[in-house]
Amino acid sequence: MIIVMQKGASAEALAEVERRVVELGYQPHVIHGETRNVVGAVGDERGKEVLQTLEVLPGVERVVPILKPYKLASREVQPETSEVEIVPGLVIGGQEFIVVGGPCSVESQEQINESAVAVKSAGARLLRGGAFKPRTSPYSFQGMEEDGLKLLAEARALTGLPIVTEVVNPRDVELVAKYADVMQVGARNTQNFALLKMLGQLDKPILLKRGMATTIQEFLMSAEYILAEGNRRVILCERGIRTFETATRNTLDISAVPVLKQQTHLPVMIDPSHATGHAHLVPPMCYAAAAAGADGLLVEVHPCPEEAASDGPQSLRPADFAAMMKKLKLFVDAAGRSLG
Amino acid sequence: MIIVMQKGASAEALAEVERRVVELGYQPHVIHGETRNVVGAVGDERGKEVLQTLEVLPGVERVVPILKPYKLASREVQPETSEVEIVPGLVIGGQEFIVVGGPCSVESQEQINESAVAVKSAGARLLRGGAFKPRTSPYSFQGMEEDGLKLLAEARALTGLPIVTEVVNPRDVELVAKYADVMQVGARNTQNFALLKMLGQLDKPILLKRGMATTIQEFLMSAEYILAEGNRRVILCERGIRTFETATRNTLDISAVPVLKQQTHLPVMIDPSHATGHAHLVPPMCYAAAAAGADGLLVEVHPCPEEAASDGPQSLRPADFAAMMKKLKLFVDAAGRSLG
Amino acid sequence: MIIVMQKGASAEALAEVERRVVELGYQPHVIHGETRNVVGAVGDERGKEVLQTLEVLPGVERVVPILKPYKLASREVQPETSEVEIVPGLVIGGQEFIVVGGPCSVESQEQINESAVAVKSAGARLLRGGAFKPRTSPYSFQGMEEDGLKLLAEARALTGLPIVTEVVNPRDVELVAKYADVMQVGARNTQNFALLKMLGQLDKPILLKRGMATTIQEFLMSAEYILAEGNRRVILCERGIRTFETATRNTLDISAVPVLKQQTHLPVMIDPSHATGHAHLVPPMCYAAAAAGADGLLVEVHPCPEEAASDGPQSLRPADFAAMMKKLKLFVDAAGRSLG
Amino acid sequence: MIIVMQKGASAEALAEVERRVVELGYQPHVIHGETRNVVGAVGDERGKEVLQTLEVLPGVERVVPILKPYKLASREVQPETSEVEIVPGLVIGGQEFIVVGGPCSVESQEQINESAVAVKSAGARLLRGGAFKPRTSPYSFQGMEEDGLKLLAEARALTGLPIVTEVVNPRDVELVAKYADVMQVGARNTQNFALLKMLGQLDKPILLKRGMATTIQEFLMSAEYILAEGNRRVILCERGIRTFETATRNTLDISAVPVLKQQTHLPVMIDPSHATGHAHLVPPMCYAAAAAGADGLLVEVHPCPEEAASDGPQSLRPADFAAMMKKLKLFVDAAGRSLG
Repeated sequence: MIIVMQKGASAEALAEVERRVVELGYQPHVIHGETRNVVGAVGDERGKEVLQTLEVLPGVERVVPILKPYKLASREVQPETSEVEIVPGLVIGGQEFIVVGGPCSVESQEQINESAVAVKSAGARLLRGGAFKPRTSPYSFQGMEEDGLKLLAEARALTGLPIVTEVVNPRDVELVAKYADVMQVGARNTQNFALLKMLGQLDKPILLKRGMATTIQEFLMSAEYILAEGNRRVILCERGIRTFETATRNTLDISAVPVLKQQTHLPVMIDPSHATGHAHLVPPMCYAAAAAGADGLLVEVHPCPEEAASDGPQSLRPADFAAMMKKLKLFVDAAGRSLG
Repeated sequence: MIIVMQKGASAEALAEVERRVVELGYQPHVIHGETRNVVGAVGDERGKEVLQTLEVLPGVERVVPILKPYKLASREVQPETSEVEIVPGLVIGGQEFIVVGGPCSVESQEQINESAVAVKSAGARLLRGGAFKPRTSPYSFQGMEEDGLKLLAEARALTGLPIVTEVVNPRDVELVAKYADVMQVGARNTQNFALLKMLGQLDKPILLKRGMATTIQEFLMSAEYILAEGNRRVILCERGIRTFETATRNTLDISAVPVLKQQTHLPVMIDPSHATGHAHLVPPMCYAAAAAGADGLLVEVHPCPEEAASDGPQSLRPADFAAMMKKLKLFVDAAGRSLG
Repeated sequence: MIIVMQKGASAEALAEVERRVVELGYQPHVIHGETRNVVGAVGDERGKEVLQTLEVLPGVERVVPILKPYKLASREVQPETSEVEIVPGLVIGGQEFIVVGGPCSVESQEQINESAVAVKSAGARLLRGGAFKPRTSPYSFQGMEEDGLKLLAEARALTGLPIVTEVVNPRDVELVAKYADVMQVGARNTQNFALLKMLGQLDKPILLKRGMATTIQEFLMSAEYILAEGNRRVILCERGIRTFETATRNTLDISAVPVLKQQTHLPVMIDPSHATGHAHLVPPMCYAAAAAGADGLLVEVHPCPEEAASDGPQSLRPADFAAMMKKLKLFVDAAGRSLG
Repeated sequence: MIIVMQKGASAEALAEVERRVVELGYQPHVIHGETRNVVGAVGDERGKEVLQTLEVLPGVERVVPILKPYKLASREVQPETSEVEIVPGLVIGGQEFIVVGGPCSVESQEQINESAVAVKSAGARLLRGGAFKPRTSPYSFQGMEEDGLKLLAEARALTGLPIVTEVVNPRDVELVAKYADVMQVGARNTQNFALLKMLGQLDKPILLKRGMATTIQEFLMSAEYILAEGNRRVILCERGIRTFETATRNTLDISAVPVLKQQTHLPVMIDPSHATGHAHLVPPMCYAAAAAGADGLLVEVHPCPEEAASDGPQSLRPADFAAMMKKLKLFVDAAGRSLG
């Protein structure tokens, strides 16, 4: 932590800062600059934001943290990329580029089965589908809840595809875990710490989506919540951030992929469906994700998008998904990974 | 809902859109334009986003919603401003401008008592203090939980100030409700719909904070979740949105006050502490809030900010809070309201 | 400048950084931390971003600047607020709160005269009106150019109000300066450095608007361009920044007022018309600006907004402007300033 | 244009809107809805924002434009992609994927020659280098101006690579045009309409960068300024937008590529150097750009980034650029394009 003193701060103010730094258990090192002094506080500052409060002392201009606040998620702590095993033989973060496909919401056995068969035959390795839906409007379809989970389980039995599905309420963690192979945390719950802590106690892979206004550092702190509870099987997913641009539903932060790859050992996926909000923009973003170095994709596919209960405009038809997968293979090969 | 056809869309495409509009229970009205046609779908579109999915039909360029998606929160439905009674004789949304003061976190009986006495003597009408803290880092202080609630209750007994405190987990709603006079939903939970639904079933006022990336329309939809469950005592609170500017912790969206005042009957408060993140910026934002037409303020006050377990840099010292309140009175008077 | 080394960076890498720091004319001070070392580079770093490029050296994690990059605009250099004289007896940044009123564009002699008379009688001290208009669309009205300037001069002769008008092309600086009392730089030209340099050589007050995506620090750097050329009469104007919120045209960054007041001695005005984009939101933002500590306002007023060639929706009618001014006086008084 | 009436707006208010719509030269079509009426104004609304001002009439809730405001840039007007010829045999927007490489600033003959030789041998088809530099700080290096242009011309003579260089002042257009093969408009000048109009009168290709806070629609309106003056050789370049994320200098809006490809016939390039601000993030973004369907890249390359006068941290070393180009070829092939 670096404490920057104001220009002309008194010797007393500086001495008081040094005294407080010592009191808090750090060693102060003063650098006397030309226009102002700075104090370096040596010691592990992570999780000890109390140093930040020195900002309120007289003569202090600002406090600059030096260390990244996460530990377990950091590539410094674990240099090799984590390979998250979903089921035996299926790993996210390894050599294979993994595509998860399926509808936004589970709507009926027929719909989820049709989706599952279609995405599997096109090369997807997991099935996605929501049974608990966090919807902006209380008047929108809220999901089929446990009935939806059962339909998902049927579709898994039919196709062998493991299931990714969202949990939104800490109360439902146990229930969802009974059915899901991967528990998804949606963008509105990235900082739902109560939920994250419970998922950290689970023996299940967690797919953690980035929030719409979550910085990459905060995103890693949310992963840290799960890791710190003992669950090391965390998969990160960038799904678009909120910006001023309205041509797309959100703005896909594609450079988050190499930034995350540098800072963390956790696998990184991309959800181009929520990021763009329009089906015709999804395939080019799938290719870009593979090229940027992502470990996989989450893609919304619906047998009949114009009848979808949610997110129809951003869902690919099965034929369009299959065409995308075919072209995707070229980019995955170029990236030195394998598909399907 | 207005469906805009592409330039040169075929007569069949137009007919198919009309057919679907009818099928969904609306009446289509086609306006034949010079370069393209548009179809108006007449009927109450709220909660029926299924019309939006017509975007995927051939020949459709885009779908433009016309109605605001909220009902109960709308000033169209209830023209007069809601006066939310906290305890007998204390109303938010009425003639009196209400200030809530207190520390970010409850840390000890002494700290919360000292805070309560100080904010009361300066004119605050409610006491705030967090017992359950949603912290970005799992290594940061997470709050005293029920012990903190008990300390708050002691401070209330001492001063008579009703308590505003946050709930972050649906599981804790009942527990927090045993102690709190007003249940606060923090910015990270604005779209925690599971939590909102439970609070909608409570007979307690709810202070709902706007999320960092929540649009005003989405904010009102979150209020609608509570209202739709039957709890009509909702107070809105703007606390800064996330922008590119880094001089402040967030950017206080002061124009949200008149926008909300026009669109909804619910009372609107401002939290300048979280919005700015720096104590010296808080007083001018308090004055601006009163001038802009807000119904009150949430202000962080700590007896010793440099020792605060959280949010020290943005907390006012009691003396600074008292000075602010004195000057605030002039602006509240100018706004035709009364203080304290 | 603080250079943060990577964890485990070699002694050679550290030595190389020290060597380069010396070579660039600074003194290196190494602080040996628990997990990584940091190097303080002592010396005036302003304008010498070359230190930043040390980021590319092996073993360097990042480079953190300590000093603010502006000098002449800084309150450290000049603690007292600048009072910018417009004409004898009319000062911006002094005790009086100054309101500038008038239409977005000059459209006719009748329109500008009517506007000038109306804003003067309501208490405005300067007249605004655009003759050169930077319009998003090439097909929109682009302004009356020199003819418009002449009409403004007539309105000044009629009312005695000094004129604020925009210049958009360095080529027109001389022409506009022949007519204008204050030269305005619009939000799209905040970083038009060629224009700023020319204005820095003028003996005229400059009203510099903040760009839609300009940070406060960059805004002050743009002011520095004018100051560094010798023109010290710079007035800053916040007019809304671009965010994700669409209920308003931009988001008024009201906390920029106290931030700027702390960092610079230059006067600060607010333009609530462009910030909000809707006439009914303008009056509350005028009051908030006065309460937040601004030195004045720029308000769009048009005798007949529904016929305005530009910005009609955000222009006040003369009667509404007069009503606003009356109420504004109460807030200006509360702020300890005087109006009109 | 769709005019949405308020709930309960009077018949007189509706009649007045219809009267004004007719007066403005459009035909009104009223759709009587369940809770409110809407009026469609039929006629070409582009460039005629005067309709927007109907928002101020009594009883009007808001006005929704239907048409995109650009014409010449629109793919509706010209369905086939524009192929912009730079020099005979070199086209941007055609089958070949074009890479432009070179330093941020021209610093010396040796530096620019070395850069030119390096980027050419790695496969770049044009050389970039700035002689007029728009710098945030007046104390930073401002470019070598005409001397720099001469050095660029020498490097062109040496290598045969055409030159892309920036013009920032309308006054310098003629001068820069004497040397440049492609005139670049930087992100700070995307809405410098005076500059755009002059470039529209030139017989030279224009590389127009998107501004940091420019929407895609506004970006196309800026292109329209050039096109409307008669110059049809416009190349668009996405270079990152400003968001809340600070891990990167800006946020590369990769989905702008397919959005632009759908809306306009103009070629689209990507500048990953300014978008990310860090050299190690540039290669993955180059690959992503090719995969997303861009027509080419602008990449900063410097023989010795740690000594660069500007943008050192984001410049690739020649060896890293060559390695990137080799891997890029795989992604360009996958995209069905050719490189070099």
